[in-house]
Amino acid sequence: MSTPATPPVILSMGDPAGIGPEIVVKAFRERPDLLRDVVVAGDVPTLQRALRITAPDTNAGGLMLAQIEAPADLTMAPPGCMAVVQACALDEPVRWGHIGAQAGRAAADCIRFAANAALHHQARAVVTAPIHKESLAAAGVPHPGHTEMLQALAAGHAGLSASAMPVRMMLSGPGLHTVLVSIHMSLRQALDAVTTAQVLQTIEITHAHFQRQGVSSARIAVAGLNPHAGEGGLFGREEIEVIAPAVAQAREVGIDATGPHAPDTVFMRARRGDFDVVVAMYHDQGLIPVKLLGLEHGVNTTLGLPFVRTSPDHGTAFDLAGTGRASAASLLAALDAALETTGRTIS
Amino acid sequence: MSTPATPPVILSMGDPAGIGPEIVVKAFRERPDLLRDVVVAGDVPTLQRALRITAPDTNAGGLMLAQIEAPADLTMAPPGCMAVVQACALDEPVRWGHIGAQAGRAAADCIRFAANAALHHQARAVVTAPIHKESLAAAGVPHPGHTEMLQALAAGHAGLSASAMPVRMMLSGPGLHTVLVSIHMSLRQALDAVTTAQVLQTIEITHAHFQRQGVSSARIAVAGLNPHAGEGGLFGREEIEVIAPAVAQAREVGIDATGPHAPDTVFMRARRGDFDVVVAMYHDQGLIPVKLLGLEHGVNTTLGLPFVRTSPDHGTAFDLAGTGRASAASLLAALDAALETTGRTIS
Repeated sequence: MSTPATPPVILSMGDPAGIGPEIVVKAFRERPDLLRDVVVAGDVPTLQRALRITAPDTNAGGLMLAQIEAPADLTMAPPGCMAVVQACALDEPVRWGHIGAQAGRAAADCIRFAANAALHHQARAVVTAPIHKESLAAAGVPHPGHTEMLQALAAGHAGLSASAMPVRMMLSGPGLHTVLVSIHMSLRQALDAVTTAQVLQTIEITHAHFQRQGVSSARIAVAGLNPHAGEGGLFGREEIEVIAPAVAQAREVGIDATGPHAPDTVFMRARRGDFDVVVAMYHDQGLIPVKLLGLEHGVNTTLGLPFVRTSPDHGTAFDLAGTGRASAASLLAALDAALETTGRTIS
Repeated sequence: MSTPATPPVILSMGDPAGIGPEIVVKAFRERPDLLRDVVVAGDVPTLQRALRITAPDTNAGGLMLAQIEAPADLTMAPPGCMAVVQACALDEPVRWGHIGAQAGRAAADCIRFAANAALHHQARAVVTAPIHKESLAAAGVPHPGHTEMLQALAAGHAGLSASAMPVRMMLSGPGLHTVLVSIHMSLRQALDAVTTAQVLQTIEITHAHFQRQGVSSARIAVAGLNPHAGEGGLFGREEIEVIAPAVAQAREVGIDATGPHAPDTVFMRARRGDFDVVVAMYHDQGLIPVKLLGLEHGVNTTLGLPFVRTSPDHGTAFDLAGTGRASAASLLAALDAALETTGRTIS
């Protein structure tokens, strides 16, 4: 038995009360090729339960679970088995669709395991199934979501403060990538977050990400903030005073950034191939077009971390949890994005 | 020769220096069925020039222009001829792609003619080709665009102030209608325009429009303002304090309004059929999804006027004007929307 050329991708199970565990097992069942590249960081009994509810007919030939001790042991899992590292502790099964500290703690433990594996080069990428913000808070985790938690873990590993490792969220749908200047804050706060420094930093992080992906000079379209990108100052001056200077500074260091472009047409133009990626000024400016193109195929990538991290573009769907009906499509898109970025194992 | 059952649709030519005249003649050439329902309010020499540049090969069988004196004379235009009322005066041909007071004045005169025809029941709907805001301003027209000008004309005709005839812009693309609470202002100003009164008025105008179209109780989705519609107050309180009360008041008077819904998924949900129309809180929230679905098919409808008014969802495209290359697709979509609303003539 040979050692794989690269360490596996780690997939964290997500909140055990949400759809995470069931879409994890559905992903492997739909795409057995993933078994040789992906290790799950999760809770074995929770994932066994997910196996049962997603395939009531458990006759021969179904997906099995193999508990392994460490990501590098993936090669020792029997053929056809989903390799799982027990990355958290649950005293008893959590109730589907319920907020709870125990579930939040388990979800956080799985994320921590995955991040540490990546930071110690035992994983080549991290993919995260959805967590629930309120369960996380109930568990006393001081981060509102994955992005902030991964940022803190990566910065801590590097001996830096979180602010010294700026990250950005990239959302991708069919034919469209968009990177957000700000994410989870009110629109009023988001307006204040549109500063020349923040916009420039977003452009630089975007450029660096595409460079690591082999695109030496990504065509970065920077959206305006106001209707018609302000129409020459008539509908707001942020384009003139804040965004254009950031674009100019990026161009001075050789980045192929353009804009500010009219927000209502820049996404359409990116989609038809005019640009590689759009820098969006606030959450919904970027998320409305990506989600309209197909929620099922949306992928969230965290830029700025020292490792690749993707996730599906949806939440825990507590109303669906336990029914086995949730779709694994977006999770599969996230797994594929991580694998395409870091190289698949050729069998 | 019989009088038509209903007066014609009036199509204003738009700014003579823009693509308006050429997409007008292209629309009739592509769709000769329009000739029996639509009268152009324009400048005859400008439209003759547009005929020449869009069909260099003027051999037999091409579209001809017939000047008529009043909309009701449409039936007297020879078969196969585009009926034009000389609705403005131009001393000399304007230069394509140039801002100018003469062009702005001509464009305004055509709009005024079309609006007056509709207000006096000589037109059953108004469709407007694009105008240029700066030319309009150069001509001393005190309105920034079509919508405000039509509102002022209709209110004046009714003996009202413009504010007593509130209007809203509805943008429509394939499978999606969205009505905007505010349009041409900075995003900061748009945030202040999101008041319970403004949102409620938008819902009421939307409901009344769909009722006139025969939809007795349109399913109106009201978008939130903040990411995730504020996530319970975590990312902004406008949903709780401003938008939800407007939805509640609308429901009290029997309007089927719901929300506030998460902005990043409400358009996708409307498109798959969950709602008939989305009330959007600001310009780009509504325009980004509509334009992404197909700029060529976008239609702008003004709600709240005493007549139907539609327009293509694009501008004068000064860079294309005079080349004959501009597409008439969006203008045809606007004409079709006006005709579908008011009934086609059955030949």
